Amino acid sequence: MALITLTTDFGTRDPYVAQLKAVLYGRGPAGLQVVDLSHAIAPQDVRAASLFVEAALSGFPAGTTHLVVVDPGVGSARRPIAVEQHGQRYVGPDNGVLSLRFDGTQRAVEIEIARLNLPPPSATFHGRDVFAPAAAALASGCELEALGPVAHDLVRLLWPEPARAGDSIHGEVIHIDHFGNLITNLRSEHVRSLGHAQLAVELHEQRITLATHYAEVPRAALVALIGSSDRLEIAVRDGHAARSTGAAVGARVCLQRA
Amino acid sequence: MALITLTTDFGTRDPYVAQLKAVLYGRGPAGLQVVDLSHAIAPQDVRAASLFVEAALSGFPAGTTHLVVVDPGVGSARRPIAVEQHGQRYVGPDNGVLSLRFDGTQRAVEIEIARLNLPPPSATFHGRDVFAPAAAALASGCELEALGPVAHDLVRLLWPEPARAGDSIHGEVIHIDHFGNLITNLRSEHVRSLGHAQLAVELHEQRITLATHYAEVPRAALVALIGSSDRLEIAVRDGHAARSTGAAVGARVCLQRA
Amino acid sequence: MALITLTTDFGTRDPYVAQLKAVLYGRGPAGLQVVDLSHAIAPQDVRAASLFVEAALSGFPAGTTHLVVVDPGVGSARRPIAVEQHGQRYVGPDNGVLSLRFDGTQRAVEIEIARLNLPPPSATFHGRDVFAPAAAALASGCELEALGPVAHDLVRLLWPEPARAGDSIHGEVIHIDHFGNLITNLRSEHVRSLGHAQLAVELHEQRITLATHYAEVPRAALVALIGSSDRLEIAVRDGHAARSTGAAVGARVCLQRA
Repeated sequence: MALITLTTDFGTRDPYVAQLKAVLYGRGPAGLQVVDLSHAIAPQDVRAASLFVEAALSGFPAGTTHLVVVDPGVGSARRPIAVEQHGQRYVGPDNGVLSLRFDGTQRAVEIEIARLNLPPPSATFHGRDVFAPAAAALASGCELEALGPVAHDLVRLLWPEPARAGDSIHGEVIHIDHFGNLITNLRSEHVRSLGHAQLAVELHEQRITLATHYAEVPRAALVALIGSSDRLEIAVRDGHAARSTGAAVGARVCLQRA
Repeated sequence: MALITLTTDFGTRDPYVAQLKAVLYGRGPAGLQVVDLSHAIAPQDVRAASLFVEAALSGFPAGTTHLVVVDPGVGSARRPIAVEQHGQRYVGPDNGVLSLRFDGTQRAVEIEIARLNLPPPSATFHGRDVFAPAAAALASGCELEALGPVAHDLVRLLWPEPARAGDSIHGEVIHIDHFGNLITNLRSEHVRSLGHAQLAVELHEQRITLATHYAEVPRAALVALIGSSDRLEIAVRDGHAARSTGAAVGARVCLQRA
Repeated sequence: MALITLTTDFGTRDPYVAQLKAVLYGRGPAGLQVVDLSHAIAPQDVRAASLFVEAALSGFPAGTTHLVVVDPGVGSARRPIAVEQHGQRYVGPDNGVLSLRFDGTQRAVEIEIARLNLPPPSATFHGRDVFAPAAAALASGCELEALGPVAHDLVRLLWPEPARAGDSIHGEVIHIDHFGNLITNLRSEHVRSLGHAQLAVELHEQRITLATHYAEVPRAALVALIGSSDRLEIAVRDGHAARSTGAAVGARVCLQRA
């Protein structure tokens, strides 16, 4: 069974997702399944998309092809790329949206449109005219290197790195999820680096206990914990942390001894 | 062909649905299809989710596994359960979200995480770490009883019951759908119990004719009828009843002779 | 592999999409895949749905069945139809929602509910009770003509046609997409009909250059181009044209020599 996953910023009110699926089912192998991951990435938000890609694409079976189309630069000089790493394939624009998945073992090619045996692509929709045909080809057994020449120096997004100052580590909120949880750039390694003392997180001059379960605090109370993607997050038990705290993406957080 | 249906309150902006799908496709049987039912349940709204589950999960082929993750109590003492009834399997938290599907013939077990041969689950995402692996195991042919000991006394949600007073039956609005239709806790059995007279529904001191088709009333008029899930609903033909009437969930309705 | 695509105005908060899928998987052939195209068509907006259908349903493999349920007239006299054209099947209400797909070579039947061997349909949900069983039957190999008698004079939507006046062509905005792009009723044939001169589009007394790529204009500038569905669209590079211009559906545009 061939799988192609789909991540876009297209929404589903317009025909764009359907047009991708038509190409994938029309050109992909018999028995193909196209799996929707998200079409609700904020429009043209490459940074949000790259965080999604980092967390969402793990654990699919070997041979899965991941098609990611968040492409504000369509029609400009940004390269279309196809990448293979650990038995998975990735197809999308070389604008950094895929970059958090790569660990240095990836092989990448620049997709040469002429190799896809297709009519000339439209100026505005490389998702349908370039990326989807390339993903269908890979899912059909096409070798990565058949799609184009090796691509070096893929674009990487720069993310703010947490900074240590004495016994504190300063980070920031990088995403607010559907439940209002504040997801930060701090990870379990930062927690461990402060030793075994009881820790707390400071946000907007509030001190928030670092716990291991939501249920350690009463309903409606703030709690900080390492979430399911190994990131420190700040939540309100049975509530909405972003509304309770007023914090937005970019808000500073500080991890320190309690 | 194995089917696993998916019902969550995760939305699709975040990676959580994708993470469930990665586990299901990674651990499920060859040829598995994961079928999205909804990721738009109101966040942590177990009551709304249970109404969805009641109406949405009927009619799937024998052997389907239904995975339902609306789980505000994750990390607390609520049990993870797997249930079999009429050849279908259900996996989710024991918080009542599944309870409207059960008719007394179900067999239920408490999922023992140790039996899934997995790393220790995260504190915050049992959907990915407990429920999805259990659903994948069942879809792969695992026996229900292999997942854990029999579970008794499943949590049941209490719903307001309609009350009869003379020739009237008093109920309430329990859901407002995407079209603005007001869905009530009155059913066709209540209509029948009032005999063959012409009936009407009172809402906010308006009398609304009980019809059998939207088209029996003029455009923009209010109409009450038994909807596709055997519930009395109040609609505006080619309009939006919730906006027209101002009624919200909990609004009182009264069914009586016209 | 049998494919049934699904296009509705149901949203996904309610059980209606799930109920369609239960019928399709319950009655369709082994190995069926149901492919979501959109459940975000504006409620009961047959015109918006027909534009979606025109652009979204091209390119699927031969034998695909397209189920389209945007059906404000359910329960009235509008006919349920099934149509075959170029090896694809279409099932939905005869209210014009499918009409932009038809090129005169289609064969159409009026679905006779008695032929589906089903319980009497509900008054409010022909999607589940009539259209989905018909689509499942077609996907299972049922001949079109087995579903009912030939249907003539299908409903066609009337769309505003662009009008030529001297060296100008007057059209209008017919859709605003998720990215804020203004999609018009002008096509590449209209551009070609004005010859090889440099052209511009006038909207709200602004002149907008007709380009071939977004990247021909600076960031935040307005640009007009022929989009991926062969329609003239007005965009803001890396921006939101509807917000920048205040234009809505129905706004007049004029294509003329620059």
